[in-house]
Amino acid sequence: MIRDSAATRQRIVAAATVEFAAHGLAGARIDRIAERAGANKQLIYAYVGSKDQLFDAALEANLELLLDSVPFDAGDLPGYARRLRTFNTTHPDLVRLVLWHSLERPGRIAMLAVAKASTEHKARAVAAAQAAGRIDASVPADVILRHLLALVYANVVDAVHGGTADVAGGNTGADDGLADAVRRLIAPAPLGPHDPA
Amino acid sequence: MIRDSAATRQRIVAAATVEFAAHGLAGARIDRIAERAGANKQLIYAYVGSKDQLFDAALEANLELLLDSVPFDAGDLPGYARRLRTFNTTHPDLVRLVLWHSLERPGRIAMLAVAKASTEHKARAVAAAQAAGRIDASVPADVILRHLLALVYANVVDAVHGGTADVAGGNTGADDGLADAVRRLIAPAPLGPHDPA
Repeated sequence: MIRDSAATRQRIVAAATVEFAAHGLAGARIDRIAERAGANKQLIYAYVGSKDQLFDAALEANLELLLDSVPFDAGDLPGYARRLRTFNTTHPDLVRLVLWHSLERPGRIAMLAVAKASTEHKARAVAAAQAAGRIDASVPADVILRHLLALVYANVVDAVHGGTADVAGGNTGADDGLADAVRRLIAPAPLGPHDPA
Repeated sequence: MIRDSAATRQRIVAAATVEFAAHGLAGARIDRIAERAGANKQLIYAYVGSKDQLFDAALEANLELLLDSVPFDAGDLPGYARRLRTFNTTHPDLVRLVLWHSLERPGRIAMLAVAKASTEHKARAVAAAQAAGRIDASVPADVILRHLLALVYANVVDAVHGGTADVAGGNTGADDGLADAVRRLIAPAPLGPHDPA
């Protein structure tokens, strides 16, 4: 029974991922999720709760998949950036879920336990690498992380100013100078006057 | 008469900006736009066309405002990055419009005339600064631009991994090491082995 209910929940969350990635929170239809999952609506509400909770559950499941698939490596940030970009390129649903979530439940992602734990873990790992002298310590760990992630998700941003990449995985997966840019961000020698954080 | 119709169109586009930024394309209601603009639906269709066209028109008007307000400056990319971030922080509607557009009309932003012209203009200016020896030429102009914009819009990306900033202008406007990071991206000395583009 326990195994069955875990499988059922997984099927519901997988169906929810497809529906929410395509239509967002407001546009999603629980009917379609139920049909795709081979479950009925009552079962969905029993397993996951409200539509909002199902939306959060779909995002969390995909974030967990990402964190399991691309382990953070403070000792090789350029390589980590590349692997993270590749994962996102091959999982456009995750990128779309995050964007819908940001628009329709602003400020909530930071409150998800999985996101919070991951951010804290990464910041600690970078700070430890800085303390050990393996990464330049002149830039705060959270700033390095923030900028690394920004470069990885440049295809999201590309759309803003008319780039050719698409939010939903339009990036080809080519490096596009990504690893070099990350190397520049963490280069040991300060390159000019620093700004106050 | 010509003056009146320009003012009417402007009022319609301003009302559309508010509605689309809040609800996106699918969720927006032409009724509410008409009410806010003090126009009727027929007038809106006559002036701007379909709902899709009105969505595009709202985005274009806001992109034009951005381009007019923050002139590109290839000679001071760190300063340009700061000014661009400040504009976006104080115009959350623009960021939301772009994100909805990316989700609901993927790949279309790059085809807007205003976006295309701006991207080409910026790439030419960076290439010229590189040719004149004012910016390091070892990184292609389009990569520099892509990464600069990614850093500027880091608050959009922040949400992905549980940052505290919000897509819709949650950034405080503080520099957060932005100018320093841009300086690192365009630093004259290569800092390690380069990746093939």
